[in-house]
Amino acid sequence: MKEKTAYLISIGDELLIGQVRDTNSSWIAENLTGLGISVKKIIAVQDKENEIIKALNEASSSADFVFTTGGLGPTLDDITKKTYAKFLGVEMEFNEDFYNKVKAYVKMRGGEIKEMLYDYSFFPKNTVFLKNRVGSAPGMLFNKNGATIISMPGVPPEMKSIFTDEVIPLLQKDNKDFYLVKKTILTIGELEAVIADKLKDITDSIPENLSFAYLPNLGRVRLRLTAKGKDKEALEALVQQYSGKIHDRIGDLIFGYENDTIEKVVGNMLKERNLQLATAESCTGGNVAHFITSVSGSSAYFKGSVVSYANETKENVLNVNKKTLENFGAVSEQTAKEMVAGALKAINTDIAIATTGIAGPTGGTPEKPVGTIWLAAGTKDDIKTLKLQLGKNRLKNIETSTVLALNLLRKFLLSKK
Amino acid sequence: MKEKTAYLISIGDELLIGQVRDTNSSWIAENLTGLGISVKKIIAVQDKENEIIKALNEASSSADFVFTTGGLGPTLDDITKKTYAKFLGVEMEFNEDFYNKVKAYVKMRGGEIKEMLYDYSFFPKNTVFLKNRVGSAPGMLFNKNGATIISMPGVPPEMKSIFTDEVIPLLQKDNKDFYLVKKTILTIGELEAVIADKLKDITDSIPENLSFAYLPNLGRVRLRLTAKGKDKEALEALVQQYSGKIHDRIGDLIFGYENDTIEKVVGNMLKERNLQLATAESCTGGNVAHFITSVSGSSAYFKGSVVSYANETKENVLNVNKKTLENFGAVSEQTAKEMVAGALKAINTDIAIATTGIAGPTGGTPEKPVGTIWLAAGTKDDIKTLKLQLGKNRLKNIETSTVLALNLLRKFLLSKK
Repeated sequence: MKEKTAYLISIGDELLIGQVRDTNSSWIAENLTGLGISVKKIIAVQDKENEIIKALNEASSSADFVFTTGGLGPTLDDITKKTYAKFLGVEMEFNEDFYNKVKAYVKMRGGEIKEMLYDYSFFPKNTVFLKNRVGSAPGMLFNKNGATIISMPGVPPEMKSIFTDEVIPLLQKDNKDFYLVKKTILTIGELEAVIADKLKDITDSIPENLSFAYLPNLGRVRLRLTAKGKDKEALEALVQQYSGKIHDRIGDLIFGYENDTIEKVVGNMLKERNLQLATAESCTGGNVAHFITSVSGSSAYFKGSVVSYANETKENVLNVNKKTLENFGAVSEQTAKEMVAGALKAINTDIAIATTGIAGPTGGTPEKPVGTIWLAAGTKDDIKTLKLQLGKNRLKNIETSTVLALNLLRKFLLSKK
Repeated sequence: MKEKTAYLISIGDELLIGQVRDTNSSWIAENLTGLGISVKKIIAVQDKENEIIKALNEASSSADFVFTTGGLGPTLDDITKKTYAKFLGVEMEFNEDFYNKVKAYVKMRGGEIKEMLYDYSFFPKNTVFLKNRVGSAPGMLFNKNGATIISMPGVPPEMKSIFTDEVIPLLQKDNKDFYLVKKTILTIGELEAVIADKLKDITDSIPENLSFAYLPNLGRVRLRLTAKGKDKEALEALVQQYSGKIHDRIGDLIFGYENDTIEKVVGNMLKERNLQLATAESCTGGNVAHFITSVSGSSAYFKGSVVSYANETKENVLNVNKKTLENFGAVSEQTAKEMVAGALKAINTDIAIATTGIAGPTGGTPEKPVGTIWLAAGTKDDIKTLKLQLGKNRLKNIETSTVLALNLLRKFLLSKK
């Protein structure tokens, strides 16, 4: 069986002026992908009849399914229903049943019934309705140009309700023999280009029904394997085989899979080992603590942090030796190590992370240019360090050194296993 | 002069399987709208030559400008550059200058240079480059079908850097007879609905060539005034008139204009007053310090922070009284005040902020449900406090209480002027 395809169309001026971000499309795309339906194109158009009809014609001629969201509310700027009638070449028809239901709903909510409700109760003739359990605008199903076209309101909870309760059962009936198996491998600490090079012979040899992609983001690169076809078990075996090959090659760079984050992975390791963590932060300015405490339940293993932006704070709160600061500078391996020791003592924990560096964009010297950062992680008995040489962008440097400091802690914990 | 139009095209399989949400398009759309360019359509397509070319043809025939993002990384799945060459009908050409730059960059980062870098250094012939200050993939500018086509990498900070530093100056040069005057008023500490109610008679009376929008974001609401037309001076006067009316009505909620951030505004106030700041953070977990230190130059007024996630740290490092914790709890006005006093002493500063609360999603009690947060800001002589009752979303609670803590400091400083 051929893979089924879909187009998504989001309708609304607010999307095209950037006032509202389209979150519906990625949600629908993820769900369709999970159902083995391949999304070919996502389009956002203005609330204009000719633009909507143009997009509907392109979509219905190119894909098996078309999903549109938006433009179904009761206000004057919502022209979607009339546009659908024109696109389908049918009349608008008053729906008494719908009118009575909405009238009852508005009365129940204590609202007034206005003439607008009457106009709102017209639909393209022969519309198949899809029930909306959380709002008044129903989903609608049409057929044209050989495609099944489904229209849903743009309010995310309403769209999700219609999609989940009405659309998915329809699609599953329609698409029984097609499977999609995916796996996301999460790496940290190496550049996309370097990983790609290490994996070149593996990725060069992947069969046609398997696809492979790199998704880089500040210190981290996600690797995505996607297999499509009829034989679910064979696809799972194929993904497993390539995931295994990649793991054998670059296992040291892999910190997790799917939706893992470095802060969650490190948190789980600390919890398992029953260790309490502290951080001592200079260049990351509290961002390591922020990443750690973004995880719900982190108070089980995180006790606190000292952000020592001033040298005085490094000395007074973290007990970094004045001589160390004078001889090696605040941005040095020695200072990073003493910050770890100081955090262990000040916060009274088993293990600590420290960061010190020049986040930029100014403040560098010839010997220590902007982007020079020292990380340290360890216990009273042993401390690992890492020097980074990043770029000049302050926010990127802060986030990159944050995740790499967490990764240094992960590697430290692994080395003590 | 006719209003200029644009199409946006996002390239990447990851968008169409819903794994990555396209945040670039709404950002570009908002910026283009601000420059008086009307976005007609946003399209997301797969990494497939024929799909990309089809979208480029449609877009370049329909709009004055086409912006594409994505598909410019060094790995095998990035086919955008070759596709552009085909679309333009030109050869690919080796760019030695680019090759040498990337080689130097990879070397500096300690990576190895492999053959792939050579392939990565080919570009469509006659490409006009747009400088990327935060990554290796440059922006590219082409002309076809009467449209100006601009290709940018999909990594958001890289796209934003190219757009801001390279594209905006080009667009401004190109769009001389049509004026768009805008002003963004930044408020903090009040809900959109409440502000809308306070401003109702003003916003009801705005003339047709002026538009008004609310853009809410966790504790902050941006109010955007946009006037369009030919008479620049009249437009500026109109915007100034309405901005003044709004300021007269809700001046106490306004912390800045345009691209100000609360952390920058507070930083400037501290600098002007020559005050040194510390933070003592529980529920915000270092995020207040992170916001403050995101601002370049913040070391001039920020000395450090104690993140006291454990009560033990509140007692030992911040010297919060054990009895206070026992009698009032860690989430209390008393504890917040003692945390301010403790931070002033531990970090040795003039002024301090403290946060303590239940970020959630669990950990609430009937008396102190999730979202109960106490903020405090002050000096050794006087401390202001504020109680928040937020929702159950951990990340939202952290960010909202972070910005409102900074706002409490702003109000404290204003009261001492």
